[in-house]
Amino acid sequence: MKARIHITLKSGVLDPQGKAIQQALTGLGFDAVEDVRQGKYIEVELSESDAEAARTKVSDMCEKLLANTVIENYDIEIVD
Amino acid sequence: MKARIHITLKSGVLDPQGKAIQQALTGLGFDAVEDVRQGKYIEVELSESDAEAARTKVSDMCEKLLANTVIENYDIEIVD
Repeated sequence: MKARIHITLKSGVLDPQGKAIQQALTGLGFDAVEDVRQGKYIEVELSESDAEAARTKVSDMCEKLLANTVIENYDIEIVD
Repeated sequence: MKARIHITLKSGVLDPQGKAIQQALTGLGFDAVEDVRQGKYIEVELSESDAEAARTKVSDMCEKLLANTVIENYDIEIVD
């Protein structure tokens, strides 16, 4: 079972990496860019056959290690 | 219009960051973890109303700046 995790900065938290990308894109002539936010994407392969149990484990992983829940949100998608 | 971009390492390319996460998770007692791959997730807000035009632009951004296409794949999703 595979889990796809998106970790994104909460709205209101400054994203200097996103701003740097935005400026680089504007510098390359992409004028239509209004905002850029960068997050993390993590794929975890689990030896777990129950989707609900997998989601609980991955949620625990996010709380304990993967995300800084003070400034970041995480979103978990379980796929086969 | 918003574009969600996933940038992941091609299969076969070593992912030391993913391996470090995997070891940290195992160290925390998450034994069910078999593999971890880390990628990037970028959200781009565009002043473009046509979805096809937006996709073309974002694809161009990936080729020119966001992804290293020698070792990375990118996947674009256009949302309203």
